[in-house]
Amino acid sequence: MEKIPLGPMPYMSVMPTVLVGANVKGKPNYMTAAWATVACMAPPMVCVAVNKGRYTAQGIEENRTFSLNIPSVNQVIETDYCGLVSGAHEDKSLVFRSFFGKLKTAPLAEECPVNIECTVFQSVDCGSHELYIGEVVEIHAAASCLTDGKPDIGKINPLLYAQYTYFGVGKPVDRAFFAGKKYMRK
Amino acid sequence: MEKIPLGPMPYMSVMPTVLVGANVKGKPNYMTAAWATVACMAPPMVCVAVNKGRYTAQGIEENRTFSLNIPSVNQVIETDYCGLVSGAHEDKSLVFRSFFGKLKTAPLAEECPVNIECTVFQSVDCGSHELYIGEVVEIHAAASCLTDGKPDIGKINPLLYAQYTYFGVGKPVDRAFFAGKKYMRK
Repeated sequence: MEKIPLGPMPYMSVMPTVLVGANVKGKPNYMTAAWATVACMAPPMVCVAVNKGRYTAQGIEENRTFSLNIPSVNQVIETDYCGLVSGAHEDKSLVFRSFFGKLKTAPLAEECPVNIECTVFQSVDCGSHELYIGEVVEIHAAASCLTDGKPDIGKINPLLYAQYTYFGVGKPVDRAFFAGKKYMRK
Repeated sequence: MEKIPLGPMPYMSVMPTVLVGANVKGKPNYMTAAWATVACMAPPMVCVAVNKGRYTAQGIEENRTFSLNIPSVNQVIETDYCGLVSGAHEDKSLVFRSFFGKLKTAPLAEECPVNIECTVFQSVDCGSHELYIGEVVEIHAAASCLTDGKPDIGKINPLLYAQYTYFGVGKPVDRAFFAGKKYMRK
């Protein structure tokens, strides 16, 4: 397979779209992001990269708490809006109805099927972006998106992100921790 | 929308499947992971969470370099195999053909359409997992997966991961940095 070197760039294939929630100056604010993933199993942690100049970064620094909210494909307009405008110029506190869980300073977007409440465990200054590593203190999920008490991707219908485009989740390809057994039998 | 608290857990909706490449004791090894994302724009960085007990972690610690390789849906069996068995017990150096780029200790899987070469910028001990933040020194992409010189998700056809299942990418939902303009006109 012929490979072409493209130079260094911040690349990942497809990422989950999230709304980073933070109280800034006492008011809920949501910022669209895709540079987010799980950082640790035990204790449970997630991480998200936020441009240091963003209004949201001020709120996270202020309270040392934040939330990651998982929007569904039917929230694409509101979600993208939160990436187009800054809370420094536009009040985004009414784009979603906010509620609070265990933490009183990490606003959670009610319309999003899953909300992850976090306290900052550590933050890493990477250059243009601060990587916030948050310990998960609670997960809130819509009752309608659960199957056997667990969040169900088929019901959540999350919004993915790649190359300036939002995508839905595609078809199942195979079972993880199982498909590879076919290789073992080769 | 009625919300149910599920307790703290390591949750993210859908994540990219990657193969973490590292030389361990001088030999290429690949480990399947999904807890990976971009960590910084400038300089370009990515991050990946690796269980501290994993064989791959030894290699990253040894060389302070690693690679993230993006498999396509047609590599699902090989990819899952690399998550089922440990390099401590099985030699995984021949699952993929390895090549080396700028770094001489970060093996790159030739069959994967995109390879990301990294040096460790910082690693964070989160508990069960070490979060490796890597500065991207080079991206290699298959010539057949480029459109106008850039990696094209439609051609890469990457493997996503959620709830013990691999998924493909779904249909485009809307344009990012654009769809939200409809909200602004409301």
